[in-house]
Amino acid sequence: MKVSQIGQFGLIDLISKLIENCRQPQEESWQNLRTGVGDDCAVWQGERTCYLSKVDSQVQGVHFTLDIISWRDLGWKALAVNLSDIAAMGGKPLYALVSLGLPFETEVENVISLYKGMLELAGQTGTAIIGGHISASSNLFIDVHVTGCISSHNGLVLARSDARPTDLIGVTGWLGSAAAGLNMLRQKMVLEPPAAEYLKMAFACPEPRLAEGKLLLEHGVRCAIDISDGLLADLAHICQASGVAAEIRAHYLPIRSEVKTAFADQAFEMALSGGEDYQLLFTASPSVMEAINKVCSYPVTVIGEIKAGSPGQVFVIEQSGKRTSPSLAGWDHFKKN
Amino acid sequence: MKVSQIGQFGLIDLISKLIENCRQPQEESWQNLRTGVGDDCAVWQGERTCYLSKVDSQVQGVHFTLDIISWRDLGWKALAVNLSDIAAMGGKPLYALVSLGLPFETEVENVISLYKGMLELAGQTGTAIIGGHISASSNLFIDVHVTGCISSHNGLVLARSDARPTDLIGVTGWLGSAAAGLNMLRQKMVLEPPAAEYLKMAFACPEPRLAEGKLLLEHGVRCAIDISDGLLADLAHICQASGVAAEIRAHYLPIRSEVKTAFADQAFEMALSGGEDYQLLFTASPSVMEAINKVCSYPVTVIGEIKAGSPGQVFVIEQSGKRTSPSLAGWDHFKKN
Repeated sequence: MKVSQIGQFGLIDLISKLIENCRQPQEESWQNLRTGVGDDCAVWQGERTCYLSKVDSQVQGVHFTLDIISWRDLGWKALAVNLSDIAAMGGKPLYALVSLGLPFETEVENVISLYKGMLELAGQTGTAIIGGHISASSNLFIDVHVTGCISSHNGLVLARSDARPTDLIGVTGWLGSAAAGLNMLRQKMVLEPPAAEYLKMAFACPEPRLAEGKLLLEHGVRCAIDISDGLLADLAHICQASGVAAEIRAHYLPIRSEVKTAFADQAFEMALSGGEDYQLLFTASPSVMEAINKVCSYPVTVIGEIKAGSPGQVFVIEQSGKRTSPSLAGWDHFKKN
Repeated sequence: MKVSQIGQFGLIDLISKLIENCRQPQEESWQNLRTGVGDDCAVWQGERTCYLSKVDSQVQGVHFTLDIISWRDLGWKALAVNLSDIAAMGGKPLYALVSLGLPFETEVENVISLYKGMLELAGQTGTAIIGGHISASSNLFIDVHVTGCISSHNGLVLARSDARPTDLIGVTGWLGSAAAGLNMLRQKMVLEPPAAEYLKMAFACPEPRLAEGKLLLEHGVRCAIDISDGLLADLAHICQASGVAAEIRAHYLPIRSEVKTAFADQAFEMALSGGEDYQLLFTASPSVMEAINKVCSYPVTVIGEIKAGSPGQVFVIEQSGKRTSPSLAGWDHFKKN
């Protein structure tokens, strides 16, 4: 069977089982491992501090093409997608290592721009770039590995597996902006400068929600994920890991006017399934959600509720009251775009 | 300018300076960083433990082709080359994260074999595989990131920068075996089974010298590197970082009979410049070297001496007493093979 047939998540599932079968309880490494494969980051215990480890990659032709993203923005984004996972655990980034695969004909100046983009975000977030590797490669790729830590002394993290029925579902910022930006760039759409800039930045320079992740954790939230695959897919990940179902209200989804104006017909699908928004999706009791809304200066929107039900199932309730299962209504349709 | 013109080390030099200019002394991450870019691993301080971080990659068509290495061996090697860097600091591996770039048509069974190879070595060394990432990619690549630690409470490591004039130069195991293995496989040479197996394993399944690295550190060695680029290149790295020169004695180089028999004319060049042997190259005072030779059950050979001189310069003394500069005599010539 080919990996294209089993799919990314099927393959991850197989590999997770292989690794689990090789667990060595007598080893220090396994003893101190608190969360392995399956959450936004791995979590392991130091002497007092809890550390987070994450790797993510940007591959040319898969995650980007160089006609729609600059080398500087690519550097920013390659680090940002990893810091977003640190944010989704409630952590703080410490160190990054960068592995580059570069075609022989790559301009040195472009590699410098790539690093400048990464270093700008690293500087804003206190992340030290401490090493890396450079290899020739027919296809450009950037692999970034980040180590972070959780400052709280009780070692709690934001886990995917802690959603409980009756929890409200919250999301930071806006949904669908990155997908709209990607579409605008691919289709070479000409929009008014402020809208064009907003959408471009949403796709090319996502801001990892580190302050918000820390605030969520400090105020009693226990369950979060960052939205990389899309709202529906990432909410399904939470529901699978937590053994619950979810209902979201279509008309609650926070969608920016720039997205609605430029993509009237697709805005809702982009918000549901667009992916790469790198906002935080989380669940919390109504009282915790109320507290978050009071202390968080960045927008937070309640979009639905966790339900007891078939693990991983996500329903969308339209304003008319119609209830649909988005695995049929949303995800596949958008993939055709 | 293209990266092919400036070269890997020129590019690393440029990037190191960019990073150095962005150092943030007020940040916890930078404060706890003990060694950044430029040694086998980055070193950062936890509460008491010193941690090591390293990333290395295997790229199809650059580091391997699938006609000469099995998927299982590729998995082993992708982890081994990283553990070798942990060994070269005197450390112990703890955690690994694996980032895969897979063509759509990759067989799932091959990915499982790759992981089985990695997990076999992980099991032998107490390394826990705790996460990773899978992406589509036109070209197969495997990026492994390893976190290790230094057990010694004084936080000493084996650094590249601690070679001193009058130190002896030692090397574990044998030189040139991996290059001989690669050549045998590429040329489809048919050798006697034991020789063929030895050479294949030397290329495809290097054993990271973790026990030896720990022993070197415990017995007072302060300077080491693992041989990935080749004896001459890696000795030059030590000499550059330490501001010293070196002399090696050609007839002292430990070369296995299998290499000499199969590659009579090339054996010496393979030992000097072949690379990928993943043995430890280290320097130590004569008394420390004597102690190492007594306690180390794995072969260690003294091959030369550190000298005051032009930083990074390495001389080879032939048995006749003739002194050559290998940057002219060795490295480039072998690259033509």
